[in-house]
Amino acid sequence: MDGYPFAHDVRVRFAETDAQAIAHHASFVVWLEVTRVAYLAEFAGGYAAIRSRGIEALTTGVHVEYERPAEFDDVLTIHARCVDVRGARFRYEYVVERAGERIATAYTTHATVDRETYRPVRVPGWLLDDLLRTGAPPTAS
Amino acid sequence: MDGYPFAHDVRVRFAETDAQAIAHHASFVVWLEVTRVAYLAEFAGGYAAIRSRGIEALTTGVHVEYERPAEFDDVLTIHARCVDVRGARFRYEYVVERAGERIATAYTTHATVDRETYRPVRVPGWLLDDLLRTGAPPTAS
Amino acid sequence: MDGYPFAHDVRVRFAETDAQAIAHHASFVVWLEVTRVAYLAEFAGGYAAIRSRGIEALTTGVHVEYERPAEFDDVLTIHARCVDVRGARFRYEYVVERAGERIATAYTTHATVDRETYRPVRVPGWLLDDLLRTGAPPTAS
Amino acid sequence: MDGYPFAHDVRVRFAETDAQAIAHHASFVVWLEVTRVAYLAEFAGGYAAIRSRGIEALTTGVHVEYERPAEFDDVLTIHARCVDVRGARFRYEYVVERAGERIATAYTTHATVDRETYRPVRVPGWLLDDLLRTGAPPTAS
Repeated sequence: MDGYPFAHDVRVRFAETDAQAIAHHASFVVWLEVTRVAYLAEFAGGYAAIRSRGIEALTTGVHVEYERPAEFDDVLTIHARCVDVRGARFRYEYVVERAGERIATAYTTHATVDRETYRPVRVPGWLLDDLLRTGAPPTAS
Repeated sequence: MDGYPFAHDVRVRFAETDAQAIAHHASFVVWLEVTRVAYLAEFAGGYAAIRSRGIEALTTGVHVEYERPAEFDDVLTIHARCVDVRGARFRYEYVVERAGERIATAYTTHATVDRETYRPVRVPGWLLDDLLRTGAPPTAS
Repeated sequence: MDGYPFAHDVRVRFAETDAQAIAHHASFVVWLEVTRVAYLAEFAGGYAAIRSRGIEALTTGVHVEYERPAEFDDVLTIHARCVDVRGARFRYEYVVERAGERIATAYTTHATVDRETYRPVRVPGWLLDDLLRTGAPPTAS
Repeated sequence: MDGYPFAHDVRVRFAETDAQAIAHHASFVVWLEVTRVAYLAEFAGGYAAIRSRGIEALTTGVHVEYERPAEFDDVLTIHARCVDVRGARFRYEYVVERAGERIATAYTTHATVDRETYRPVRVPGWLLDDLLRTGAPPTAS
């Protein structure tokens, strides 16, 4: 997808549906995280590598706009890009598609902290490079 | 809490924590829903009453800003108000507190649809009255 | 309930339902844990107290028999007793009721380990007394 | 795996871990279901095909024995077989492995019911054949 060089697929689990017979809206928040983990595995040596360097990444904000419901067993493609790295903060943007149709958009904000003290630390240069290695524009839309 | 005439308590479950030893950020999204259900039980005869009149309420947006982590067994107070009812759309705003300290703020957006056709229907007058019965100002901050 | 001196109520959350319009069967596993936490708060100074003494309790087995479905907003009463403490192992038994009707039975098995080494340690005497303080017979049915 | 002709992989999500820094024990229950859905897709035309013929499959029992913890980002292989089809009831057995090491065993029991009336119906012949097509022995261990 233009401007989103990374994508990850998830299949809607039955446990993720609700009594409206659609995927519960909180499930999307979990899928965004699954996508970030896959993104880090692809571009930054994985989440474990980041933690092994003494960095923990916290989620400081979650914003999802739902356009169409997802249903059990749907395969969803989550396009992601990392943008707006500033000091100890960065941001991911997402588009969730099903069979080429957009069903949700989202962004999440994050902060890097020291694993021991939980104090903010600047996103290290090596991680900055990795996060943005995808060619995504370094500023948010 | 000033401007938020309704509050609901939740206790952080062990299953809601994650390997950072804090409540997983998606758990907050579930707690907001638990709070809305309690709100409707208090002011609008309950969610079942709404459905029995042929109305379904969809969640169209979720926005959470996390300020401090919650931990296992914490008792959180979620203050809520319903604001901004317009046509088929309405919005809840929330403040999440622990022992009087704010740890998160949030808002969610919703649409009322016909239970059979899933087409948007205006928020009915009786529900409008109930939603806003709390004395919350009918416009968002 | 005869033989089950402890009980804890949970209300079925919308997020816990699935597309069969009933509570997802994995939700019961979480409710059993919620009940154990409440049990420990009542009889053993709480889970935090146990951990502060260097003990971690692991779940080694989960067994649930579902007799009737639970639905959204149902209030369920989970009766629990701790039985069969032997060495580093103990066991809880449960009956889940809705309005006096039994809808599920369950038992879970647990082991106490050292918090640092994760090696099994005998259930300490003080905890043994607390666990069984409820008057439940110390042997399983 | 000998006697288990079907296997499905899952990767432990961060949201599925808990404050003990391991996968929460309820997560396994969800993974068993994910495996059954994949099993049905492989052998019986998928869960949707079964429902389209007017059959609903309920979960009537869940039994998990945990031998070793799973951690974030672990890839687990869940071996499954369907056994013991009798009247309206059938049973799945599972072995959960990580890198060839067994970490859990489980079995779940199920009943087929009419989608409209929720009354038990015999497992239909076409489904029976599909369920057992894997070559698994038709009797439980």
